[in-house]
Amino acid sequence: MSENGVLLKNKMNGSGLKGKALTRNGLHHVQVNGSLYPAKVKSRRQCWEVKPSDMAQNTLNPIRAIVDGMKLNPNPEKPMIALSIGDPTVFGNLPTDKVVLQAMKDAIDSQKFNGYAPSVGYLQSRQAVANFYSSPEAPLDAQDVILTSGCSQAIDLAISVLCNPGDNILVPCPGFSLYKTLAVSMGIEVKLYNLLPEKAWEVDLQHLESLIDENTSCIIVTNPSNPCGSVFTKEHLEKILKVASRHCVPILADEIYSDMVSHRQWTRHKTSVFPGCSSPSMASLSADVPILACGGLAKRWLVPGWRLGWILIHDRNNIFGSEIRQGLVKLSQRILGACTIVQGALESILNNTPPSFYSSTVSFLQSNSEICFNELSAVPGLTPIMPSGAMYIMVGIDMENFPDFKNDVDFTERLVTEQSVFCLPASAFEYPNYFRIVVTVPEEQMVEACGRIREFCLTHYRPRSRDSNDLDQ
Amino acid sequence: MSENGVLLKNKMNGSGLKGKALTRNGLHHVQVNGSLYPAKVKSRRQCWEVKPSDMAQNTLNPIRAIVDGMKLNPNPEKPMIALSIGDPTVFGNLPTDKVVLQAMKDAIDSQKFNGYAPSVGYLQSRQAVANFYSSPEAPLDAQDVILTSGCSQAIDLAISVLCNPGDNILVPCPGFSLYKTLAVSMGIEVKLYNLLPEKAWEVDLQHLESLIDENTSCIIVTNPSNPCGSVFTKEHLEKILKVASRHCVPILADEIYSDMVSHRQWTRHKTSVFPGCSSPSMASLSADVPILACGGLAKRWLVPGWRLGWILIHDRNNIFGSEIRQGLVKLSQRILGACTIVQGALESILNNTPPSFYSSTVSFLQSNSEICFNELSAVPGLTPIMPSGAMYIMVGIDMENFPDFKNDVDFTERLVTEQSVFCLPASAFEYPNYFRIVVTVPEEQMVEACGRIREFCLTHYRPRSRDSNDLDQ
Ligand SMILES: Cc1ncc(COP(=O)(O)O)c(C=O)c1O
Ligand SMILES: Cc1ncc(COP(=O)(O)O)c(C=O)c1O
Repeated sequence: MSENGVLLKNKMNGSGLKGKALTRNGLHHVQVNGSLYPAKVKSRRQCWEVKPSDMAQNTLNPIRAIVDGMKLNPNPEKPMIALSIGDPTVFGNLPTDKVVLQAMKDAIDSQKFNGYAPSVGYLQSRQAVANFYSSPEAPLDAQDVILTSGCSQAIDLAISVLCNPGDNILVPCPGFSLYKTLAVSMGIEVKLYNLLPEKAWEVDLQHLESLIDENTSCIIVTNPSNPCGSVFTKEHLEKILKVASRHCVPILADEIYSDMVSHRQWTRHKTSVFPGCSSPSMASLSADVPILACGGLAKRWLVPGWRLGWILIHDRNNIFGSEIRQGLVKLSQRILGACTIVQGALESILNNTPPSFYSSTVSFLQSNSEICFNELSAVPGLTPIMPSGAMYIMVGIDMENFPDFKNDVDFTERLVTEQSVFCLPASAFEYPNYFRIVVTVPEEQMVEACGRIREFCLTHYRPRSRDSNDLDQ
Repeated sequence: MSENGVLLKNKMNGSGLKGKALTRNGLHHVQVNGSLYPAKVKSRRQCWEVKPSDMAQNTLNPIRAIVDGMKLNPNPEKPMIALSIGDPTVFGNLPTDKVVLQAMKDAIDSQKFNGYAPSVGYLQSRQAVANFYSSPEAPLDAQDVILTSGCSQAIDLAISVLCNPGDNILVPCPGFSLYKTLAVSMGIEVKLYNLLPEKAWEVDLQHLESLIDENTSCIIVTNPSNPCGSVFTKEHLEKILKVASRHCVPILADEIYSDMVSHRQWTRHKTSVFPGCSSPSMASLSADVPILACGGLAKRWLVPGWRLGWILIHDRNNIFGSEIRQGLVKLSQRILGACTIVQGALESILNNTPPSFYSSTVSFLQSNSEICFNELSAVPGLTPIMPSGAMYIMVGIDMENFPDFKNDVDFTERLVTEQSVFCLPASAFEYPNYFRIVVTVPEEQMVEACGRIREFCLTHYRPRSRDSNDLDQ
C-alpha cells in the first residue's frame, strides 16, 4: 500500500459542533478527502492578538474584587488581627486530629494509592462516605457518592450537570460567592433569594417562590451558612423543600458545614426525630425532591488545603435517574477528582477520628461566637446576629449612626487603618451594611478584636436624630 | 428603621447575562423593587423533568465509549495481561522513589500544609517548578508557574483561557483524547492534524498549516507523544513553531512526558545545543510564539493519582501579556488547584529525587520498547513504529491480511478472547487500524504478551493476493 494510501485510510477529522447539534453529533467524524485541504488559504491572522476567553473574563470573584480594591494599611501600633479568612487553620489553634494525619501517612506507606483512581473515586472510599452519611431516612450506597477535588468542584459539577446556559439558579443572599462565580462564567443566570436577619437568617420563602420560573434549574441551600453561621430548623427546611417540590426544582444542598452546629442548636434537634444527628440534612427530610448534597473534609476535619469533597446523590423517587448520574460521571472524567492519598486515607479519617475532636471544635467555635456576640451586642451602632453553626457571625452596621463612612467597605477599611482588625465587608456576599467575622481566631485575640471594634465604633458613632436631615448639616 | 426598610436597603439582585454582554456586565446588579415580585406566577414546571445539561451530555470520552462497547472475555486458560492502561503504577514494578514518599510524610508532619494555598499554588512550590524547568533560552520565574490538579486541569485551564465557543483548536491525530473531550464540551471545534507514521510520527506540516484559519485559537503539540511514544527533533519542533509564528497562533505544549526520552534519542540531542537537557522543550526553541506548557508529577515521578500538574507560561514577547495570566488566575479560583500536601512536598520531590531514579525508569521503558518492537517486527501483518520516549508503542495492523476482523476494535477484542492480552484499539485516538501498547509491564509479561500476539497473528494471518478481490471468494 502506498504512503498516501495509508494516510488516506487513517486520516480522520473530528468537528466539535456548537449548540444543540452537539448532543447528537459530538463525536461525528468526517473522512478527510481533498476538500479538507482548502485550495487557497484565507482569513488568517497577520499579527498577534491573543485575548483571554469570555469565560476567563467572566469568572469574577467578588471577594477578590472588593478586597483588592481596599486600602489595607494597619495601624503600626497594633498587631493585625485578620477576622476575614474562612480558613480555620490560619491561626494554628485548630489543628486537625492526629488520627487524620496518621491515616495519610499510612496511605503513603501502603504505596497502594499512587496510581489513577476511577474518576469518581475509589469504590471503597465512596462506600466509606456513604456509610458515614447514610441514615434510615436517606440511605446512601457507594454508587450515590462522587468524590471531588474539594467541595468547590462538587458545586461546579452539580451546577454543570443541572444547568444549561440561559437557565437560572436561585442562590441565597447573603451567600457564598462561588455559586455566582461559577454560574455566571457558564452563562447561567443567578437570582438571589433573601435571607431574613431578623429571623435568624431564615429564607424569605415568599421571595424564593416568586423567583421560580420555567428556566429555574436548581435552588442552592447553604446550611449551616457561610457567611451567616445560621442553622435552619427541621421545620424551616421542610418549608423550603415544599417550595422546591411544588415547582419541581431540584436542590443543591451545600452542607460543607454539616454537623458544625452549636450544642444549643443540637439539643434542639435532639428532641426532634434526629437523635444522634446534630442537624438534619435536607435529604433526610425529603420524600420527593431530588438533592445533590455537597460536602467535604475542608471544614469539619480542618484540612481545607487537601481538596477532598463529595457529592451525595439523593434521588429516592428516581427523578435524576441514571442520566444525571451518568452526566456526573462524564463530567468527573474531565480532570479527574481528588488526590488518591487523601482518598486512601478517607475511610480511616471518617471511621477513626474520635468524637471528642468534633465536639471540641464545635465547643470552641460556640464559645468564641458567644464572646463575639455578647461583646458586639453592647457596642452602639452594631447589630450582631447570633449564629448557631459553621464558623461565622454577621454583624449589621447601622450606617446612619456612622456618618464618617459611606458603606461597609469604607467602614471595614477604616477599621484596619485605625485598629488593625480586618473583617470582610458583606458587600462581598451581595449584602451591604454588614460585615462578617470568622470565629476561628484564638480566644484572646477574639476578645482583643472585639475591644478594638468597640473602641472604633465609640469613636465614630453619632446618635441618630429624629430628623435624618440633621445628619446633612 | 422598619423591618422592610432594612430589607429593601439590603436586597440586591444579580443577573448572569449571556453571551457577549457578560463581558461588561458580569457583576451587574439590579436593586430589588416591587417589580421583581411578579404579580402573577406563570410558566412554572408542573411535573419533574430533570435532564443533564448539554455540557454533561457533550463530555464524551472516546476511550470509555470504545472500551465499554467491547466484549472483553479473556481466555480462561491464560492469565490476563493488560497492555492498555496508561498508568505506570498498575503492575507494581515501577514504584516512585522513596525520596518522593518521604517528602510527602514530611509535609504531613510539618502541619504547615493543611490550610488553603493560593489558588495558583504556594509561591515556594511554584518557584521550585520554575527553577526545575528554567533554562537560559526559556527562563522561568515563580510568576510563570500555575499549579493545577493534575496535567488534565492544566490542559483544561489552558484551553479555557485561550478559546471561546466557535473557535477551533488544532489537535494531533493520533492524539490524547482529553483535548477533544474538553474542547467539544465547551463548544470549541477540534481540527485534527495528521502525524506521519512513516516519519516517526512527525507532524504533516502542510496539513497542519492548511487547517489554520482566523478562528484558530491554539495548536496543541504533544511531545513526547501519547499514544505514539514519538519524540520530535529540535529541527522538527522549530518547523512547527514557524507555522505557529507565521499565522500568529499560540501553542499549548503538552509536555507531561518531558525527559522521558530514550537514551538513544537523548544522545542525539546531547550533541545539539541542549547539553544536560534530554529533549528540548518547545519553549526553549521559541523566540516569539507564546506557549502554555503543561506538565505534572504523574508520569515522570510515577504518581498519577496525586493530581499535581502545572502550566508554565512562556511569553518572552509579551503577547499573552497580563490579560492571559490574569485569566488563568481567575479560572484557577473556580475550584482551586492541587492538594496542599503534594504542593508542600514538591520542592523536595523536584530537588532531591536522585538522577538514578529517572534514568532507571527510562532504561526500563527503553528496554521494554525494544523487546516489543523487535518481537512484533517479526510478526506477519503487524507494523510497530519504534518509539523514542513516553511509555507507548503504536502498532499498525495490515487489515487486508486479517480478513477475520472488521477493524482494530474487532482485532483487539478477539486478542483478549483468544490470548488474554488487551491492547487499546487506536480508534480511541481517532486512528483506526493501529493499536497502542503500554510498555510499563514487567519484562517477562512483555515477552509473554508479544509471544501471544505473535501466535494470534499467525493464526489469523492470510497472505495478501495481488488481486484483492480474491479475498472475497
Ligand atoms: C458554603 C461553602 N461551600 C463550599 C466551600 C468550598 O469548600 P472547599 O474548600 O472544600 O472547596 C466553602 C468554603 O469556604 C463554603 O464556605
Ligand atoms: C499526553 C497526556 N497529557 C496529559 C495527561 C493527563 O495527566 P494527569 O494525569 O496529570 O492529569 C496524560 C495522561 O495520560 C497524557 O497522556
